[in-house]
Amino acid sequence: MLARQKTFLQLQKPSIFSLVTKYKQDFLQQNPKAELLNLSIGDTTQPLSAFVTAAIQSAAARLGTKEGYVGYGCESGQSELKEKIAERIYQGKIRWDEITISDGAKGDIARLQTFFGPRVSIAVENPTYPSYIDGSIAVGVRNITILPNKEGLSDFTKAPNADLFYLCMPNNPTGKVWQRQDLCNLVDFARENRIIIIYDAAYSQFIRDSLVPKTIYAIEGADRVAIEVQSFSKIAGFTGLRLGWCVIPHALKYRDGVPISADWHRLLSAHFNGASNVVQAGGIAALSDQGWKEVHSDIDFYLKNSAILKKALQDVGFEVHGGENAPYLWVNSKAASSWPLFHKLLQKAHILTIPGEGFGSGGSGFLRFSAFSKRSSIEMAAERLQRLC
Amino acid sequence: MLARQKTFLQLQKPSIFSLVTKYKQDFLQQNPKAELLNLSIGDTTQPLSAFVTAAIQSAAARLGTKEGYVGYGCESGQSELKEKIAERIYQGKIRWDEITISDGAKGDIARLQTFFGPRVSIAVENPTYPSYIDGSIAVGVRNITILPNKEGLSDFTKAPNADLFYLCMPNNPTGKVWQRQDLCNLVDFARENRIIIIYDAAYSQFIRDSLVPKTIYAIEGADRVAIEVQSFSKIAGFTGLRLGWCVIPHALKYRDGVPISADWHRLLSAHFNGASNVVQAGGIAALSDQGWKEVHSDIDFYLKNSAILKKALQDVGFEVHGGENAPYLWVNSKAASSWPLFHKLLQKAHILTIPGEGFGSGGSGFLRFSAFSKRSSIEMAAERLQRLC
Repeated sequence: MLARQKTFLQLQKPSIFSLVTKYKQDFLQQNPKAELLNLSIGDTTQPLSAFVTAAIQSAAARLGTKEGYVGYGCESGQSELKEKIAERIYQGKIRWDEITISDGAKGDIARLQTFFGPRVSIAVENPTYPSYIDGSIAVGVRNITILPNKEGLSDFTKAPNADLFYLCMPNNPTGKVWQRQDLCNLVDFARENRIIIIYDAAYSQFIRDSLVPKTIYAIEGADRVAIEVQSFSKIAGFTGLRLGWCVIPHALKYRDGVPISADWHRLLSAHFNGASNVVQAGGIAALSDQGWKEVHSDIDFYLKNSAILKKALQDVGFEVHGGENAPYLWVNSKAASSWPLFHKLLQKAHILTIPGEGFGSGGSGFLRFSAFSKRSSIEMAAERLQRLC
Repeated sequence: MLARQKTFLQLQKPSIFSLVTKYKQDFLQQNPKAELLNLSIGDTTQPLSAFVTAAIQSAAARLGTKEGYVGYGCESGQSELKEKIAERIYQGKIRWDEITISDGAKGDIARLQTFFGPRVSIAVENPTYPSYIDGSIAVGVRNITILPNKEGLSDFTKAPNADLFYLCMPNNPTGKVWQRQDLCNLVDFARENRIIIIYDAAYSQFIRDSLVPKTIYAIEGADRVAIEVQSFSKIAGFTGLRLGWCVIPHALKYRDGVPISADWHRLLSAHFNGASNVVQAGGIAALSDQGWKEVHSDIDFYLKNSAILKKALQDVGFEVHGGENAPYLWVNSKAASSWPLFHKLLQKAHILTIPGEGFGSGGSGFLRFSAFSKRSSIEMAAERLQRLC
């Protein structure tokens, strides 16, 4: 029988999300009547847009008819959806055939990790979304550089020999955004040093500052160095439905000049069979004029949650980052570890958050608050914070 | 910039499915008015069961309401679906918590390949479903044994040092089934030699012979050596909807006695975010009494297609295998290569099939016919075969 792969020994620790879930369950067992306000996981709570719901229902209805039934689709997704993404999100900067459709950002990032294999060296932010590291370790990657910060941004110049940079923008967990000039510097550095940027823009539609780019391809030359991963999860409430996409520009090439996209399609054909067709119908609807209006009203709703929560936290004296162009607030506990404040909020205010430590040592001392809750929970949390402090 | 991974150079050849698609497109371009009968890809054509359709629609409708909306589910799937699978498919032989839900067999097999990594040695049948090999090469596996046949079955005793055996039963492409005693021998051999069987049972519900097991766990001791992958694609017409499952029994352990399932769940949490919730609702419906009746009536329909086609092929003198407990017919072209017959059928009878060569050297000289077509296409193909021969 097989020996266990060493990679999994490195992954032995439970993820921060599992750990917080365990604390939640323990708390609810000890306090069965408590009304716990869950501001931890970034999980959408607003109902699906009516227009999107109707599109999914009617796609399902078509599958129930002789005339409308279809089986396998293209593993890289429906052309109509790719065209709508090219038009709505990239406005011509990216062609429809540079886009592949997936079951969400996590699946795409995992397939990219499988695609690039164990021998690449990667550089990640600190703090960062855990899957960039965990998912890489799971495929056997050993060469991982945790980047230092410089003036509040990850200092990528410290990893000139990396093969891949992972960047989440707006950042999960900090809610931080990069300005255009910061991104220009990053792209220039990546081009000079021949590094590929894996740009996770899952929260891009939360950007309200018109000067902050919503895609890496807004930066000149980015198509030669950047892969962009996006998702309908936070844009349109598809967290449970599962839909996302990945851009591999034709201009992105290996050292020998061969385009990377051909190999990517070959991997997809061996490892993936496409996103669900009824869900793709929902994605097409979300990108139509009516759908886009409806999903953006939900994004506005969550940003309003952010604003309420930010004010409440600041009113009781916390230093709060993020929450303006992002659905996450990053709260300084003013201690070396944020676990004491995590437990205090849980035990005294029945508010569940996530300790920043779970996103890397650079998150130590900070708590992440998610604004993806119901309005009533956000308002109740604001009240409880006032009573607590 | 990165150098290209050697693994992709090994995958340079297009898959047999891409190749056949190219011939199809060329044919249609040259014969725009021809009525091509596509008996190549195993793609379902019967409309979704009414009961399943209604369940998906109502799951979507719930997502459109404040009370019914839910976001992320468990990445390993909904408990209700796991329980229904444990009950309906395994009748207590497998526990619900040994099952993880996925977006289909291809996705599960890919994650298993990622999970076991590049250093395993694998043994595959000849002919075999191409993803076992392609997907393994894509993660860097080099040690691949192509098994010889012995009395019509793959001779696994020729690979006592393999880590993993891939077995598809009923077989794709040959339609061949293994008898209980054959499976007992396989399980015993795997136990003695500490080999893990990856058992792909995607076509198990097509088995009509009551003596042939529909799951590897019908064999005593299989839970210590076998992982079973299954799918709703061919059972219930979910090819485009995407839903499947994987069984990793608690009794399946590494050499040091650690259960494999814990690492599998850790991989899932890093690489996967669950199958679509509306599709899982469809799966639950398919496994209910009413749904199961409806989907089995579709399976009966495809088996009737198989029977019509088998008779037609035999009537004109072909030697035909499979097609009794499987939706595939395996037709001997009586030549070293089946490409000439492939082209003759395409050009003279406008029937598209798949050359067995595409599934490995052991498929040379055979054509695979799929019975997943509309009845009218099957009947027309039967007529054209008669006229042709």
